[in-house]
Amino acid sequence: MKAELEFIGHIETPYKTLDDCPRNYDPSGPECTLVIDPQYEEALLGLEAGVEILVLYWFDRADRDLLRQSPRHVAGTKGTFALRSPHRPNPIGATVTKIESISGNQIAVRGLDCLDGTPLLDIKPAMKSG
Amino acid sequence: MKAELEFIGHIETPYKTLDDCPRNYDPSGPECTLVIDPQYEEALLGLEAGVEILVLYWFDRADRDLLRQSPRHVAGTKGTFALRSPHRPNPIGATVTKIESISGNQIAVRGLDCLDGTPLLDIKPAMKSG
Repeated sequence: MKAELEFIGHIETPYKTLDDCPRNYDPSGPECTLVIDPQYEEALLGLEAGVEILVLYWFDRADRDLLRQSPRHVAGTKGTFALRSPHRPNPIGATVTKIESISGNQIAVRGLDCLDGTPLLDIKPAMKSG
Repeated sequence: MKAELEFIGHIETPYKTLDDCPRNYDPSGPECTLVIDPQYEEALLGLEAGVEILVLYWFDRADRDLLRQSPRHVAGTKGTFALRSPHRPNPIGATVTKIESISGNQIAVRGLDCLDGTPLLDIKPAMKSG
């Protein structure tokens, strides 16, 4: 069974190659921008600086066929669902981060781990429990 | 731009209608089961009881066209991206929960908020920061 995603915008980060990307979110990392496509801008009503959001995005360069992996930073081989690797059947990135500022259809945040231009899937308030 | 999801399994919960579903995750809620399709079972290697996981799932009954909403529990109208409503352009549910036990292709957790039979998209270790 399948379903289709619609990209709601893209993410601007300083990372132009996969080797540039950090391995995970860093709350003190460089500024990144969530750019929402104009037709979705009105769906931002109620978001403001200081709000913790869950950002979902699409690792569009990932390998979707890997069930076991042996990343350099992990001892031995693990199943894909025991790793946060971008290479997975549904390569959805998920990061909780704080809104630094909002201007029109652009949301400034910090320290995302993805390539410049990564497609954006969703934004929602983070649960208190993470 | 679009992308296609593959369902990796489904979630068994006690909830047979949308009215039955709780509004959010409840860590002390009833037991639910993540049932992984057999072809993905080997991707579970390394997961075990006690591990905190992020579970991503697909609200397949959601309305994907709502940009603003006025839920009963919220004062006034808010943008969809300022709400955790299942009704959103990409209706992906995201919950951090603890593995109670694993048996073969089945993972027992507690307190998910979705309908019985909801398609499962991804499982990954939760970030310490949520």
